[in-house]
Amino acid sequence: MTTDQLFKQIQLKKSFLCIGLDTDFNKIPKILLKYEYPVFEFNRQIIDATAEFTIAYKPNLAFYEVMGTVGWVSLEMTVNYIRERYPEIFIIADAKRGDIGNTSKMYAKAFFEKMNFDAITLSPYMGSDSITPFLEYQNKWVIILALTSNAGANDFQLLTLKENDNHLYKNVIRLSKTWGSEHNLMYVIGATQAEMLQEVRKIIPDHFLLIPGVGAQGGSLADVALYGFNKQCGLIVNSSRAIIYADCTNDFAKVAHTKAQEVQEEMKMLLTQYKIL
Amino acid sequence: MTTDQLFKQIQLKKSFLCIGLDTDFNKIPKILLKYEYPVFEFNRQIIDATAEFTIAYKPNLAFYEVMGTVGWVSLEMTVNYIRERYPEIFIIADAKRGDIGNTSKMYAKAFFEKMNFDAITLSPYMGSDSITPFLEYQNKWVIILALTSNAGANDFQLLTLKENDNHLYKNVIRLSKTWGSEHNLMYVIGATQAEMLQEVRKIIPDHFLLIPGVGAQGGSLADVALYGFNKQCGLIVNSSRAIIYADCTNDFAKVAHTKAQEVQEEMKMLLTQYKIL
Repeated sequence: MTTDQLFKQIQLKKSFLCIGLDTDFNKIPKILLKYEYPVFEFNRQIIDATAEFTIAYKPNLAFYEVMGTVGWVSLEMTVNYIRERYPEIFIIADAKRGDIGNTSKMYAKAFFEKMNFDAITLSPYMGSDSITPFLEYQNKWVIILALTSNAGANDFQLLTLKENDNHLYKNVIRLSKTWGSEHNLMYVIGATQAEMLQEVRKIIPDHFLLIPGVGAQGGSLADVALYGFNKQCGLIVNSSRAIIYADCTNDFAKVAHTKAQEVQEEMKMLLTQYKIL
Repeated sequence: MTTDQLFKQIQLKKSFLCIGLDTDFNKIPKILLKYEYPVFEFNRQIIDATAEFTIAYKPNLAFYEVMGTVGWVSLEMTVNYIRERYPEIFIIADAKRGDIGNTSKMYAKAFFEKMNFDAITLSPYMGSDSITPFLEYQNKWVIILALTSNAGANDFQLLTLKENDNHLYKNVIRLSKTWGSEHNLMYVIGATQAEMLQEVRKIIPDHFLLIPGVGAQGGSLADVALYGFNKQCGLIVNSSRAIIYADCTNDFAKVAHTKAQEVQEEMKMLLTQYKIL
């Protein structure tokens, strides 16, 4: 997917919502257990109930790997379902991979060829050759972890470097942005630290940012918009648990629909307010 | 597996070799394609040919994920085969995972419960809560990326921190060692920079180090031993391509046997020389 196609989706749906498919087998309604692939069935119903409000889905790999082969099948079925039914939607593998060059090449093949994801999250710790093999694919995206929304973000990402008196996460952004462009690189910036978006925007005004941590992990959408918007929106805001587990009864999909709509309406208001639509 | 059990294996086999099962479907001999799971069959033959010389196997997840579901099945079959046939051997998931706490808990479950790995490699970028869920398992190990053997290691790992004038990778070791002990934490230290092992040993004299980069990635075993040995050996040295792809004909397993034996003999010599046996 190209930047223009992504922005077009944002304009059409008046939304910059990504729904995280962190589907935990133990949390889905019992009624789904009659299906051969209950996690896929849960995803399918969530997707059908929310597709009109969201521009992206983001399955988190851990939740599929924990089920072994069945999980891997459920993941492939989910990606294929979105691809066929909602071809306009951006699909992110929340995989946080990163390895030496020849191994990263394999991961790129796994996520961009074997499975047809549009984007993958990657950890920057191993440096350039762990990232660049993914950037060789046309119209595919790399989303680099810069500043994450968890407590552990303080341990290393916010340490200051002697070389330039800047935080590590800023150095990650500064160097890695030279490996690609705003048309194939995005960054994860945790919304728990929305004012830091201002700092980030000084370095990368044009890149898209993937913002986790709105919803169950805290963080205000209005703050994120204030500090993070650029003229093509430039934000993809993720919500996982607050939408997919808003209700744990057989009404889960209906309630997810309502929750996604609520978020989309707030997004529409913000997009209008900042004259992005 | 406990530290004592691991050291006992080292003494019995007079080896600290780990064989990396980076099994690329496109590189295995054509004769194996008649099997339902050719990658498993390749692994099985490599394992049977080398088990007497090695204390650990390390499948690299990328090489299995690239094959989708079939790859995941081949990986599970490989782990189960080692477990049943060679229960004394340490099995490392070279997965380089790392995510927020509740997701890392899922990854821990995936690799330590669903699959019965002894250890997993993790990226430290997201900090403590991305690592600690793995440390709650008895007799399981976390292997944290500290200084890797690829060119990209220079990009961030070797940056100097203002706080203490030390490299980032040393800060990773210093902080993360407080999350566990030498009985459940190991570190990846690239052998391309063997003299840096001396520095590492000042911070963690007792921890095991996983050393990639001997063999195809360069690095001298004698140097690694000189700078890295402790009284319980303290080293697991990995070789992947130099053993499993030493020969690409139908004799691959026989040649892998010979190559593994050559490395083991050099290791035996070093263990004897440093009075570790």
